Amino acid sequence: MATISTQVQLAARPVGDPKPEDFAIVKVELPDPGDGEMLCRVIYQSLDPYMRGRMDDAKSYAKPVPVGGVMEAGTVAEVVRSRHPDFRQGDIVVSRFGWQTHAVSDGRGVQRVDPALAPISTALGVLGMPGMTAYVGLLDIGQPKAGETVVVAAASGAVGAVVGQIARIKGCRVIGIAGSAEKCDYVTGELGFDACLNHRDPGLGDALAAACPDGIDVYFENVGGAVFDAVLPLLNAFARIPVCGLISRYSHVGGFPGPDQLPRLMRAVLTSRLAIQGFIITDRWNRFPDFLSDMSGWISSGELRYREDFVDGIENAPDAFMGLLKGRNFGKLIVRVSEDPTR
Amino acid sequence: MATISTQVQLAARPVGDPKPEDFAIVKVELPDPGDGEMLCRVIYQSLDPYMRGRMDDAKSYAKPVPVGGVMEAGTVAEVVRSRHPDFRQGDIVVSRFGWQTHAVSDGRGVQRVDPALAPISTALGVLGMPGMTAYVGLLDIGQPKAGETVVVAAASGAVGAVVGQIARIKGCRVIGIAGSAEKCDYVTGELGFDACLNHRDPGLGDALAAACPDGIDVYFENVGGAVFDAVLPLLNAFARIPVCGLISRYSHVGGFPGPDQLPRLMRAVLTSRLAIQGFIITDRWNRFPDFLSDMSGWISSGELRYREDFVDGIENAPDAFMGLLKGRNFGKLIVRVSEDPTR
Repeated sequence: MATISTQVQLAARPVGDPKPEDFAIVKVELPDPGDGEMLCRVIYQSLDPYMRGRMDDAKSYAKPVPVGGVMEAGTVAEVVRSRHPDFRQGDIVVSRFGWQTHAVSDGRGVQRVDPALAPISTALGVLGMPGMTAYVGLLDIGQPKAGETVVVAAASGAVGAVVGQIARIKGCRVIGIAGSAEKCDYVTGELGFDACLNHRDPGLGDALAAACPDGIDVYFENVGGAVFDAVLPLLNAFARIPVCGLISRYSHVGGFPGPDQLPRLMRAVLTSRLAIQGFIITDRWNRFPDFLSDMSGWISSGELRYREDFVDGIENAPDAFMGLLKGRNFGKLIVRVSEDPTR
Repeated sequence: MATISTQVQLAARPVGDPKPEDFAIVKVELPDPGDGEMLCRVIYQSLDPYMRGRMDDAKSYAKPVPVGGVMEAGTVAEVVRSRHPDFRQGDIVVSRFGWQTHAVSDGRGVQRVDPALAPISTALGVLGMPGMTAYVGLLDIGQPKAGETVVVAAASGAVGAVVGQIARIKGCRVIGIAGSAEKCDYVTGELGFDACLNHRDPGLGDALAAACPDGIDVYFENVGGAVFDAVLPLLNAFARIPVCGLISRYSHVGGFPGPDQLPRLMRAVLTSRLAIQGFIITDRWNRFPDFLSDMSGWISSGELRYREDFVDGIENAPDAFMGLLKGRNFGKLIVRVSEDPTR
């Protein structure tokens, strides 16, 4: 009984913003699982900004997706048929099966998910890669101390929302930046940030200065561009800048016009003794046990909240992804690929 | 018996490169030392690039020298007359008396120097602030591991020469960058760097790439500008960049023309997980005992060498300082203000 997987493949490398033609939806017949393998049905597929980088053939921390290859993604799946000694039919797993409905796996990189801990979709969000990025980047690199001011952009997004809430839990003053008044209301009302600024409003620099009367001690960088420009003059001595993403730059084509801001940055690095550090969460999985323990505790106590933005059907993944890069999502963006048996 | 101190004062804030008119040589009558004070005669006065920053009225880690004030500097001096309980006539001390021949001090910030340890002038160089800057910046922030490649600019200078030699002692491959063929010969021949490039030669980027076949793991930043541009594409994943100075930028006037290099830097920070950290040695004096112990050991064993570039007479300090900013010195630049009684 052959299984058909519907895949979203990279059809062409985008120039600038990805377009529908850069993706191809293709049906592929999967082989039956061999000895030591298993067939999985994808339930949830993650959409994250980093995937834009994988579409380019540029030097980075990970290889690009080849043209004609399946787009990469984290997924939550159910084991449908198993010839693998460690997995049984019905197991829920988190894995990197990519933008597709089914996969045959030899179990490498596959972890079981405990549906009793939290809804299984959270393994792609607060309890998965984005949450871990927020946790490690803020705590290990940002090192916030009670009373300090922490600024985070994309504050209603999968990473930013967690960064700000952990900073609040640690006793910091937390300022978010988001892309609409509705998102800002959510960030202050639901997530408990001290303030949130809409980066589409004019005068971001002045508004940020007013919201940070004691300067900025930690800036969690996940967007780049205009937000960073507004943050730079407000950074205090010994400020820390974990850098996990630059979504505003991912689809940029060509050079950047002057003036050159690099000398200004380096002068601030020197005179304010800034620490700027890039990180990729895959280098830091040793922190996963601490992360899972802390995060699931904060979630069950109600101290940390999250919001998921579901899109139905794998065929809608490209459009949802293009929207993500424009900030059209509201909360952690997830494609609901097939029925969730735990709900 | 009144004492006359010859001082170099800041006459005007320089626009761009300092000019002779920006300095004034003034004779001032000092009061007699009161109870708890002492009169000191300056023997050696340090000249260092950071002093350029003190001449500007700009936000920085330290207050600017006021117009009409004495230029700041580290000094080695002899106690001439003491009414201070902790210091006796004839004591050799390191202090921050500035660009002048004599000073009355209450002892704050004054440390005794042991003439048996090394020539007392080294308290301004290898065994003083520049050596400590090299030691802490390289070891604590750069964290070099044996086999890694370390690049340092201004490699024959007071800081760079120590950075490279400590890196060599730690088993690294060390590439220096300096401003003349003669300096490069000294850096490879006397100091034992693996290679040294003349930044005045064309094609620095290609030469640096050829000299660093395994990329760069630590770049000790003390100049900025073109050298940093050449280093950036060669940085390995997890490279560390301690930033202690930006001599190429200190006298820059106006903006910087495009293209904007900041997005390129931030992309490298993210994809290569770079760590960039500014530091000021005055924040890190707790490391002084380790520093003094390690450095004096390396000096007495012959593992670490140094070169001093003496200029005679306080009246020649401004010209020597202007030359320092152009790389005219060769080794640690020191003004010999008066006779050294220990030589």
